[in-house]
Amino acid sequence: MNHTLKNPALAESGHRKMDWVIDRMPILAKIRERYRHTPVFQGQRIAISLHLEAKTAVLAELLHIGGATVSITSSNPLTAQDDVAAALAERGVTVHAFRGANADEFDQLHQRVLDIEPTLIIDDGGELTERLHTNRRALADQVRGGAEETTTGVTRLKALAKAGKLLYPMILVNDADMKHLFDNRYGTGQSTWDGIVRTTNLVVAGKTVVVAGYGWCGKGVAERARGLGARVIVTEINPVRANEAIMDGHQVMTMHQAAPLGDYFITVTGNTHVIHADHFARMKHGAILANAGHFDVEVDVRGLRSLAVDTVPGRTPEITGYRMPDGRILWLLAEGRLVNLAAGDGHPAEIMDLTFGLQALSLENLLSHPRAPGVYPVDPAVDAWVAQIRLEALGIAIDHLTPEQKAYLSQY
Amino acid sequence: MNHTLKNPALAESGHRKMDWVIDRMPILAKIRERYRHTPVFQGQRIAISLHLEAKTAVLAELLHIGGATVSITSSNPLTAQDDVAAALAERGVTVHAFRGANADEFDQLHQRVLDIEPTLIIDDGGELTERLHTNRRALADQVRGGAEETTTGVTRLKALAKAGKLLYPMILVNDADMKHLFDNRYGTGQSTWDGIVRTTNLVVAGKTVVVAGYGWCGKGVAERARGLGARVIVTEINPVRANEAIMDGHQVMTMHQAAPLGDYFITVTGNTHVIHADHFARMKHGAILANAGHFDVEVDVRGLRSLAVDTVPGRTPEITGYRMPDGRILWLLAEGRLVNLAAGDGHPAEIMDLTFGLQALSLENLLSHPRAPGVYPVDPAVDAWVAQIRLEALGIAIDHLTPEQKAYLSQY
Amino acid sequence: MNHTLKNPALAESGHRKMDWVIDRMPILAKIRERYRHTPVFQGQRIAISLHLEAKTAVLAELLHIGGATVSITSSNPLTAQDDVAAALAERGVTVHAFRGANADEFDQLHQRVLDIEPTLIIDDGGELTERLHTNRRALADQVRGGAEETTTGVTRLKALAKAGKLLYPMILVNDADMKHLFDNRYGTGQSTWDGIVRTTNLVVAGKTVVVAGYGWCGKGVAERARGLGARVIVTEINPVRANEAIMDGHQVMTMHQAAPLGDYFITVTGNTHVIHADHFARMKHGAILANAGHFDVEVDVRGLRSLAVDTVPGRTPEITGYRMPDGRILWLLAEGRLVNLAAGDGHPAEIMDLTFGLQALSLENLLSHPRAPGVYPVDPAVDAWVAQIRLEALGIAIDHLTPEQKAYLSQY
Amino acid sequence: MNHTLKNPALAESGHRKMDWVIDRMPILAKIRERYRHTPVFQGQRIAISLHLEAKTAVLAELLHIGGATVSITSSNPLTAQDDVAAALAERGVTVHAFRGANADEFDQLHQRVLDIEPTLIIDDGGELTERLHTNRRALADQVRGGAEETTTGVTRLKALAKAGKLLYPMILVNDADMKHLFDNRYGTGQSTWDGIVRTTNLVVAGKTVVVAGYGWCGKGVAERARGLGARVIVTEINPVRANEAIMDGHQVMTMHQAAPLGDYFITVTGNTHVIHADHFARMKHGAILANAGHFDVEVDVRGLRSLAVDTVPGRTPEITGYRMPDGRILWLLAEGRLVNLAAGDGHPAEIMDLTFGLQALSLENLLSHPRAPGVYPVDPAVDAWVAQIRLEALGIAIDHLTPEQKAYLSQY
Repeated sequence: MNHTLKNPALAESGHRKMDWVIDRMPILAKIRERYRHTPVFQGQRIAISLHLEAKTAVLAELLHIGGATVSITSSNPLTAQDDVAAALAERGVTVHAFRGANADEFDQLHQRVLDIEPTLIIDDGGELTERLHTNRRALADQVRGGAEETTTGVTRLKALAKAGKLLYPMILVNDADMKHLFDNRYGTGQSTWDGIVRTTNLVVAGKTVVVAGYGWCGKGVAERARGLGARVIVTEINPVRANEAIMDGHQVMTMHQAAPLGDYFITVTGNTHVIHADHFARMKHGAILANAGHFDVEVDVRGLRSLAVDTVPGRTPEITGYRMPDGRILWLLAEGRLVNLAAGDGHPAEIMDLTFGLQALSLENLLSHPRAPGVYPVDPAVDAWVAQIRLEALGIAIDHLTPEQKAYLSQY
Repeated sequence: MNHTLKNPALAESGHRKMDWVIDRMPILAKIRERYRHTPVFQGQRIAISLHLEAKTAVLAELLHIGGATVSITSSNPLTAQDDVAAALAERGVTVHAFRGANADEFDQLHQRVLDIEPTLIIDDGGELTERLHTNRRALADQVRGGAEETTTGVTRLKALAKAGKLLYPMILVNDADMKHLFDNRYGTGQSTWDGIVRTTNLVVAGKTVVVAGYGWCGKGVAERARGLGARVIVTEINPVRANEAIMDGHQVMTMHQAAPLGDYFITVTGNTHVIHADHFARMKHGAILANAGHFDVEVDVRGLRSLAVDTVPGRTPEITGYRMPDGRILWLLAEGRLVNLAAGDGHPAEIMDLTFGLQALSLENLLSHPRAPGVYPVDPAVDAWVAQIRLEALGIAIDHLTPEQKAYLSQY
Repeated sequence: MNHTLKNPALAESGHRKMDWVIDRMPILAKIRERYRHTPVFQGQRIAISLHLEAKTAVLAELLHIGGATVSITSSNPLTAQDDVAAALAERGVTVHAFRGANADEFDQLHQRVLDIEPTLIIDDGGELTERLHTNRRALADQVRGGAEETTTGVTRLKALAKAGKLLYPMILVNDADMKHLFDNRYGTGQSTWDGIVRTTNLVVAGKTVVVAGYGWCGKGVAERARGLGARVIVTEINPVRANEAIMDGHQVMTMHQAAPLGDYFITVTGNTHVIHADHFARMKHGAILANAGHFDVEVDVRGLRSLAVDTVPGRTPEITGYRMPDGRILWLLAEGRLVNLAAGDGHPAEIMDLTFGLQALSLENLLSHPRAPGVYPVDPAVDAWVAQIRLEALGIAIDHLTPEQKAYLSQY
Repeated sequence: MNHTLKNPALAESGHRKMDWVIDRMPILAKIRERYRHTPVFQGQRIAISLHLEAKTAVLAELLHIGGATVSITSSNPLTAQDDVAAALAERGVTVHAFRGANADEFDQLHQRVLDIEPTLIIDDGGELTERLHTNRRALADQVRGGAEETTTGVTRLKALAKAGKLLYPMILVNDADMKHLFDNRYGTGQSTWDGIVRTTNLVVAGKTVVVAGYGWCGKGVAERARGLGARVIVTEINPVRANEAIMDGHQVMTMHQAAPLGDYFITVTGNTHVIHADHFARMKHGAILANAGHFDVEVDVRGLRSLAVDTVPGRTPEITGYRMPDGRILWLLAEGRLVNLAAGDGHPAEIMDLTFGLQALSLENLLSHPRAPGVYPVDPAVDAWVAQIRLEALGIAIDHLTPEQKAYLSQY
């Protein structure tokens, strides 16, 4: 096989990370056992663009065990872990990924992955779909379908489908209950703070945290901020969510009002330039900015750079100080990229077990139930199966409807 | 007018309660102002079955101010407040309600309300709809539509609609964001514990609370239990919700397993006999049972009575001890009826402001947009308007999309 | 016996309340069992000034069972419950108490209680001690000692002792771990909010609560406010406590700054006029004021009255609106008296079980270990015994030091 | 100067870490400013044993700026950061420290530090004091006093003082309010979880965390566990603390009972072998063990090793799996050493600012107020000063007693 890797010699550390998480992913373990006997993806070619760290690698290997030819790259130039990439290459998956790719290289890596001429895709933020609808359109006809991981990608796919331009069926894994209720909320909540705390080594208790966006990710980030002892301010554009944030005990105001109050600013909106020059001008010396949304456009990093008279090195390479003309320093984590992945190790294994279980089963579902181009929800039975296996792995029993209760519920 | 009241002389206390809440309901105030100039319900006859306490009375009066002829009863025999009923009767609404009606009387009160020959209805748990589809079917043709308040009623309406039997359009107010996210969760959460704490005067901190059902109501009850210092056990039949409860930090198990552990048991399932003889047999001496679901069937009260060798008076009439053959006493609040209303004053005023704003606007909507029989969601614009007015009443500003952001979101 | 009661006919309701709490007070139960066989207080005369509700009545009866002649009044004119007073009188204790006594009557009731010529006293806020050091000084020589219940009383006693004027030994029950860690924090926290919520029926979630004072009581009030979904602002005069409040996630500012922000204001400082005219002038229309500190001086009620152009009846007699010259209405609960007792039922039974266990055992201790005049801590062994019995009542086992661990800890 | 370092070339990274924290330590900044003008430690020789990372380095440099000759080592072989050690050596402090010293080397490093013949010491867990009372006793007479950092060291010093053997005065910095309320609780709480989460990358929400010990450190660890969504079980030997844990909403049981339930076990007791063979035998496969107490004896690591048939590498070197004879793997972090320092970066800068402010001022105090051998509390004025400067740094104003209030409080 022909890989693109930083350094194959890093594999050992990558194998350790993969072995660690495999043990913590009971849903994938259950599926793997089945695939060993029944390689349902025999003959399929699967292209994957996901944040390439240990959990993702376990998913890619699983699909390979399921009989597929698999090729993978990282959906973000800063989230590829070179040791994991090297280990995965040794386990039978084609890997084109290295940390720190520039924009051109990032595109090239995706082109290489598409060279496999995929029959199925797993996408994160729509990187593969974008190319399959523009300069790689020739490949789209062979694609039997795919699954999308993120809110951002879902928004894009819905727009594409609405315009009648989507060329194959896509399952919106992000919208499944067992995905967004857990991955977006608890996964993002914990891993965002892990990334921030390990990078800054500052106390969160007693600080003011401004969370931009109160979707599932924002709810998780806000809840964990409070769990660490912070006061939380939420900014929103949606009045229903604004009310929800208020009733959850947070303060709600505009970013203009919040800018001088925050010690931390975390964006999770799926939108662009949520924090920009007007806000930078009002922030406190020492304010810390991080993004936990998909793209690195939520904080206007270019705007920040052009305002700055100087940069200051932080305590680790994952944090940079921007000195404003008036002397204040604003600290930006991971260049405004996904802080949980670029300055941390991404979501916990048990969370990704849920999400990746949905991914694998959704790809299977596309084979067993071929569909017309368009966007589709995850089959509710798949959602329920994942939920049930997770309970079993935890050794937890729940109640079942009695005949009397079934009759009661259907009495009309 | 011809009212059915316990005692008209109680009106003064009722007026005080109504005046108190009117001041706390800015959304209804905004609507009232408009109705004063434009009585949109001129010529309409509105029948209402809702828990008849101060907030509901304010809604009924509002519709009267809006030009309608209004007749109201209480959707639960234990939740009518006689002073409020008397006050409302003095304010121009026909009232047929008194606290403690038996089953026959309860039905008669509903029949009286229907005698108005309604063109619009507001229903809670489907009491009016049930009669309009059975012994009062003759009146159904005049009904231009209505709005339903509860999860229980919505479940029933959907079953009726699915079977093609629903005779008029019903708007599912319960399913609006500004209803269930707030009323079901924060309203039920606070008022359930208010009812329990004031009735028992026992400490909640350090106790074990078993919450049956983890829908919006159950989430609220569980969250407030933790806010009072309790350890929470959740029982569920839905594996997704069970997972959610676990990740929220609660324990999940079957009711059989939870029975010997709980100090408090609170049912919020919308189902029947969720706690029954098998569970009573395993509970601790002194366990406290309460229901916050719509009907008084969630705790098998009849079963409890037949098991008991004796009853013991509690510290107030709202709580009764049932002595088991082995000497243990189990304490039941409000005879298993909605504890927040039967042993308290129901949801806070600001919460009902949201819900009743949706109710009034949905009835208007039925007049301006006549529809075929069936179930309909609340118009999203109505939801957003209520959310926006609430923010304004709180003096809170939120962000708005910039042109750049609008372009970004629609780039595909 | 010669009682002073509102109405002896109310006894039945009082007996029900006493029976309810007796069952919930395992520590007093354990002591009662012993007293039945060994009436340690034979020949003693015990005067008590405590908030006279059901739990206190159980303590008074316990001392009576222990052989003492007991006479009791209420330490606050608004906290006496007439039904409980009537029931207690039927159980062998002399009672001089009724709800709503004016200042003169309140003093007379205390004088009557002292007529018993006590050998032991239980005091709350120093009411008995004040009189025993002024106009009833003649009785002080017979007093073998007593126990004080509150932070306020302790502060007074320490000042008296420091000045060398204290005439008998007093045990500072308030300062025992099993008292202030539980009664002050969890008792006050829950019961204060019970009193406020049942009186106002307003939502706490999303509101701003200003807590004046961050001692044990203030910590509890703030924690429960957050548990109900509120944002909390703390005011303090002590910089260490201010820092603690900040790190607990609350905001800290001056009352002047907090006045325009609060929806609720709760004083728990032990000081006077913590909220006064300057603050009233800045508060929002509809702000709610309550006191959970010992005396009714924390909110400057007289100042509020003199500012007001008018009063407005609230939804219950426990709340009164004061209309400011500019039209704003400020609502005061329970005339600024202890809101948890004057608008509620006081601390939960299980909490008072701890406190009153300490009270009874401290009185015993004074007999078995006679002391010179002065202030004394509760014997640590008594504290530990109460803690241990509580664990046993809950069925909870804890670890014990192994010989190896004992050796380790004493290795120097 | 003659240093003992791993690699002087690492200094640049160390300087970056020191510069980062200096900016976040306003109390030390205030003191530094004064020392620049008034070098109060001129002529003093200060020996320090503290966890040698960036914040500690800033304290050591501060004392050097204050005129002292300073020599420092690390109080734990795994908590020395080699880059910081190198940077500090460049800033004028003598450093004898490197990460991973074995027991002999660890002792030698301390001996080298004592070679300075200190007049003042700062100790952590009593490492310097132990040697100054045994093989370096000759140096003790020159010691004018010192300050101790930890609960563990305080326990030892008190025992020594009680036995009349302590040779110089020691100030118990650990017992100051501004130390233990913040450093032990919030510092340990956050940094322990930082160390665990970054090392394991597992989800904490929905897990069961067993915290051994409910002192200030244990309270912080338990509170942050809950803030991350975990269910918490506390083990204790003190019945009062056990009751406190229960009322805080945690479960309490023996370690024997907790062993099969926990996903994480964290020891913070100050004692030895709190988790041992009996417990290892009952734990779940995959259980994670960490220690946040001072010494590496709380988990019986030797016992664990002798039980294991095999070790398994974890995802990073900071975690090791021990395979039990029955196949279960138990994972131990940082070989049972302080997890927040050995697998993280220790307490946040703002927290150590408080503690180290107390340290510097206490050493000053020893010079200005010479004392007899014995243990002494921190001067309350020092505590209050630190609290006040912290408020000022945060821009927070608090209330002050009015003359009326002062009079009220002193009325007796």
